[in-house]
Amino acid sequence: MARALQLAALGRDSTSPNPRVGCVLTRNDQLLAEGWHQWAGEGHAEVNALAQVEDASGATAYVTLEPCSHQGKTPPCADALIRAGVSRVVVAMSDPNPLVAGRGLARLQETGIKVSSGLLEAQARELNKGFVRRMEGGLPWLRAKSAMSLDGRTAMASGESQWITGADARADVQRLRAQSCAIVSGVETVVMDNAALTVRPESFGGSPEQRWRQPLRVIVDGSLRTPPSAKLFDGGGEIVFATASQDATKREALAARGAGFIDLAGDDQGRLAPEAVMMALAERGCNEVLLEAGANLVGSFLQAGLVDEWFVYMAPCLMGSAGRPLAQWPMATMAEQQALEIVDIRAVGRDWRIHCKPALNNE
Amino acid sequence: MARALQLAALGRDSTSPNPRVGCVLTRNDQLLAEGWHQWAGEGHAEVNALAQVEDASGATAYVTLEPCSHQGKTPPCADALIRAGVSRVVVAMSDPNPLVAGRGLARLQETGIKVSSGLLEAQARELNKGFVRRMEGGLPWLRAKSAMSLDGRTAMASGESQWITGADARADVQRLRAQSCAIVSGVETVVMDNAALTVRPESFGGSPEQRWRQPLRVIVDGSLRTPPSAKLFDGGGEIVFATASQDATKREALAARGAGFIDLAGDDQGRLAPEAVMMALAERGCNEVLLEAGANLVGSFLQAGLVDEWFVYMAPCLMGSAGRPLAQWPMATMAEQQALEIVDIRAVGRDWRIHCKPALNNE
Repeated sequence: MARALQLAALGRDSTSPNPRVGCVLTRNDQLLAEGWHQWAGEGHAEVNALAQVEDASGATAYVTLEPCSHQGKTPPCADALIRAGVSRVVVAMSDPNPLVAGRGLARLQETGIKVSSGLLEAQARELNKGFVRRMEGGLPWLRAKSAMSLDGRTAMASGESQWITGADARADVQRLRAQSCAIVSGVETVVMDNAALTVRPESFGGSPEQRWRQPLRVIVDGSLRTPPSAKLFDGGGEIVFATASQDATKREALAARGAGFIDLAGDDQGRLAPEAVMMALAERGCNEVLLEAGANLVGSFLQAGLVDEWFVYMAPCLMGSAGRPLAQWPMATMAEQQALEIVDIRAVGRDWRIHCKPALNNE
Repeated sequence: MARALQLAALGRDSTSPNPRVGCVLTRNDQLLAEGWHQWAGEGHAEVNALAQVEDASGATAYVTLEPCSHQGKTPPCADALIRAGVSRVVVAMSDPNPLVAGRGLARLQETGIKVSSGLLEAQARELNKGFVRRMEGGLPWLRAKSAMSLDGRTAMASGESQWITGADARADVQRLRAQSCAIVSGVETVVMDNAALTVRPESFGGSPEQRWRQPLRVIVDGSLRTPPSAKLFDGGGEIVFATASQDATKREALAARGAGFIDLAGDDQGRLAPEAVMMALAERGCNEVLLEAGANLVGSFLQAGLVDEWFVYMAPCLMGSAGRPLAQWPMATMAEQQALEIVDIRAVGRDWRIHCKPALNNE
């Protein structure tokens, strides 16, 4: 199963909106074949493994996720395992997808196949925490990324912020982007930084010849201030604007650059509720979302309790007391502070990456 | 010499204003005796080592600092070594004190003693960097200490800040205090936190039975706003106010609590120049000074280029965008940023200690 999890992880950057799944076939404790799911719409892990052997009868299949029992873009994997004559199926976790949810295992069991579940389950859930969250909780798993100076500033008062962190930290962010289904940013970042928000595999040693999936780019832009000339539109991949604006001229100009729209209600100042953005992304099949934005948007997602983990890249410098905060979130008393759980702090080139999670205040 | 440096370090918290010095006597590569300087006015390292042996004739003395040649509170050590008949003296570094500065070694050499200098010199200079700085540069070595949240806030807007960091971090600060000749703080910290700013050896495992030196406490208080009822006055140790105020009533009230005064000129708003405070402390024989203050004072010392190293204790929490900055130092553009050299980042209990130094901007 550990090997199956390794195989599953090979699909980290490409299976969206599907989960990452790996499969190992053995007979008499001998390895028969391996497979993993690479791309949505293409072969699932079990089918890819079965395709490696002429005869899988009597084999044991180790799969990181319960085999599917429904006809999706590809036929059900449970049926493929039954047809191949495997005698035992071990899964790490049952499929949280309500379309499966135990039916895959039941189908196998009905035909006399020995079935067990729960081997390395925690690791399997961790690998697909976005998929699990969306299936069980109805929302994507949200990673936030910020870049700040040691004194907690993400930009100068003017908005100037390029570049706080060095090339190594930016390459590290590229890895976060690659594994995300969607990248959420705000109009301020688009306008100030003119960021492309694309995955550039060469920046982290990925082969440009490989097939790369560009995450969906989502710009939170209540009143559609994004200029159609933004660099955003030069890269590949889909762009949608989460907006409350029905301004036809602006929409047409952006649509002409290939953009789509997620129409949401704004508050009296035209601001969109972070929850609504996240729900819309769950509906679009986004498992893991990366929030790369300035203090305002990060602050509103944090206050809404939507941030599951946070990567704060800290540059070894002071940007001064007039700079913009890490997150716009005014608090009046110490009792209001937001506790964080530090997962780790590590050097990334000349910068430091603080990996943390919002936690319950318990002091 | 490595052993002599270990011995010297035993005086870390007690030799002020003298340097920390260790001495090892050997003969025929056999250890004869060890000594270290513990307390100003008492025996120097060489004399303490010589006191351990009846006959030191023909011995080699390893001393971490050039033996003194002048009559201070104790007689010159060079003479003691000559009288004892040692045949060779190896020192890590010559004494930067202009009263010595090579004269000690010259005196030894004149009597036929073999003399060499420079063994583990970098380590010896590091151990006494405050003494070296004061002798060579005329100013104390300044360590600053700050406590902040992950988002770089040192207090709420109201000034509330107790406690940002946990007990382990505060015990770590006690170690910094213990080795300091003086602790500088501001009237705001005294008023808001009612801090005692004393060394409490039990908080870091020091024996209360041991003889402890309380560092000089220096409160930067331009207009003498410190209330005579402050907790500051309850602990032991000397207190002085760096002030521009000549208000006789206030001075008398503070003097009645045992305080002294460093009278400095204020600017048009009554603020004192950080350089003037540091020069006054050098004149009082302060080698290592710890700045424990809020954003305003830390900012002014940083801007004056006086901070040699900085211990920033980072708590795993957000205190919000309305909180006080790490250091009051407004900057307008990215080009103005102050580069920092990170020495290390380590966990201290539930908090993280960022040890850094202001650096030249080189990007």
